[in-house]
Amino acid sequence: MTERIDGHTLLIGLMAYPIRHSMSPTMHNNAFAKLGLNYAYLAFEITNETLPSAVQAIRTLDMRGSNISMPNKQKIIPLLDKLDPATEMIGAVNTVVNDHGTLTGYTTDGIGFMKSLDDEGLDIRGHKMTLAGAGGAGTAIAVQAALDGVKEISIFNRRDEFWDNAKRNVDIINEKTDCKATLHDLADQDDYKAEIQSSYIYADATGVGMNPLQDQTLVTDPAWFNNPDQIVFDTVYAPRTTELMKVAEKAGVKHVFNGLGMMLEQGAAAFKLWTGKEMPVDYIRQILFDDDDDKAKA
Amino acid sequence: MTERIDGHTLLIGLMAYPIRHSMSPTMHNNAFAKLGLNYAYLAFEITNETLPSAVQAIRTLDMRGSNISMPNKQKIIPLLDKLDPATEMIGAVNTVVNDHGTLTGYTTDGIGFMKSLDDEGLDIRGHKMTLAGAGGAGTAIAVQAALDGVKEISIFNRRDEFWDNAKRNVDIINEKTDCKATLHDLADQDDYKAEIQSSYIYADATGVGMNPLQDQTLVTDPAWFNNPDQIVFDTVYAPRTTELMKVAEKAGVKHVFNGLGMMLEQGAAAFKLWTGKEMPVDYIRQILFDDDDDKAKA
Repeated sequence: MTERIDGHTLLIGLMAYPIRHSMSPTMHNNAFAKLGLNYAYLAFEITNETLPSAVQAIRTLDMRGSNISMPNKQKIIPLLDKLDPATEMIGAVNTVVNDHGTLTGYTTDGIGFMKSLDDEGLDIRGHKMTLAGAGGAGTAIAVQAALDGVKEISIFNRRDEFWDNAKRNVDIINEKTDCKATLHDLADQDDYKAEIQSSYIYADATGVGMNPLQDQTLVTDPAWFNNPDQIVFDTVYAPRTTELMKVAEKAGVKHVFNGLGMMLEQGAAAFKLWTGKEMPVDYIRQILFDDDDDKAKA
Repeated sequence: MTERIDGHTLLIGLMAYPIRHSMSPTMHNNAFAKLGLNYAYLAFEITNETLPSAVQAIRTLDMRGSNISMPNKQKIIPLLDKLDPATEMIGAVNTVVNDHGTLTGYTTDGIGFMKSLDDEGLDIRGHKMTLAGAGGAGTAIAVQAALDGVKEISIFNRRDEFWDNAKRNVDIINEKTDCKATLHDLADQDDYKAEIQSSYIYADATGVGMNPLQDQTLVTDPAWFNNPDQIVFDTVYAPRTTELMKVAEKAGVKHVFNGLGMMLEQGAAAFKLWTGKEMPVDYIRQILFDDDDDKAKA
């Protein structure tokens, strides 16, 4: 079989640092190959210092676009020509689309979160969510959920460097959407427990549960999850089963998810923005995560 | 089979305009895949205007390097950090290597010409060459042949825009190598015939014989080729058999070549500069040019 890249292949990037271990290149290139789309997706180690020149490279090399990750998701905004309205509210970009020299910034993390629940047949629109974290993922989830029709969001954060951002998220949601958002201090455990118990979905977007915090969880007592029909969602996907998920499963919660589906669907949303096509998500899930199937095919 | 591009893949470019129909991406990507080397080679439409920014992109994206073609082969020189000595004499770059931020320019066209003759078991070192043309290919061939030990080169050109360059090539060869170079006017047919007949190799690097001049040849009379052991080399490879080659074959010349071997070997030389590995030339030749074999494999 000859290689699929030819003189017509368009480049899509991933600009972040560190980034070499990302699964996104494998995800997108396999999806391009599967659908016969003539793109190649490559990772580039880009810091805040080299970001302006990297954005210029998107223009000069006429790249179709790029994913953007830490530490560039906010710094890239003034370098772009346009922002998608939801992305403007979120204040961070994870996807750039280059339409003949006009660069537009999008954030697909929140879309991926909502879509991953749709994929499971679960609809949180019209319901209440309790959400821990107000960093990149937390902000995208909160804003997108509010825009999509979630009725109420209780945002919990420590009084750390993200506290002001949590406050900003609450304000912008209340100002620009029909959702009612409130800010809560993670240190107030009674409040935390009460908000979780009055929500249809509890989502953790803090990174607790992931290396180096893989042995930790913000909720340690299974008794906090007293409704088996509740959704417990951890944005972490390595490990596959986080400490939070173990607590929820011990409590008998039926809908417990890690961040795999969200990760795949944020990629699929970016894929759609660049190519106009639906990513073959099940096929990609198998390639990225189904080790046994992979061996059977090899 | 999963796609071979991952987060560690390094980008190599081809910067020229027009360029989308180049075979180089197919050549290099198949060679990378065959040898399991983690590079991807993509073409970018780059003009003189966007070249400075494109060279910056090589640095910013930490590309391993790039091929450079028309119209950028000379314009790129002041944008690089170093020039290989032969390339400095040639005054044009077709290959850039990025060693951790230091960009060095090379020209592999002349190397490819000499190597393609080596591949045929033919050694022109110590012999005389008559060469038509003093553009990019002609200059690279003349300088490399002189550096490699060809004893005498008679360079023919029209009194057109390349005449001054032909003069420059003669001067620099006489000044910097042991080869004796002389300049001749293509309009002087008696001189042209005499020089060809006193040479071991006659090479045409003018582009006559290629679209839109595919029906033409500078030498029309088979009687000019009165030595069947002579080499007749046309740098054109589309069509595979040029008008010049037909004249030489009619004259009974045994060693008649188109530019395919040179094209493959200039690519192999660039491949070696980027990867340190030998390109599997026979395998690549089969993929690019052996249509019947290709179908058998498909």
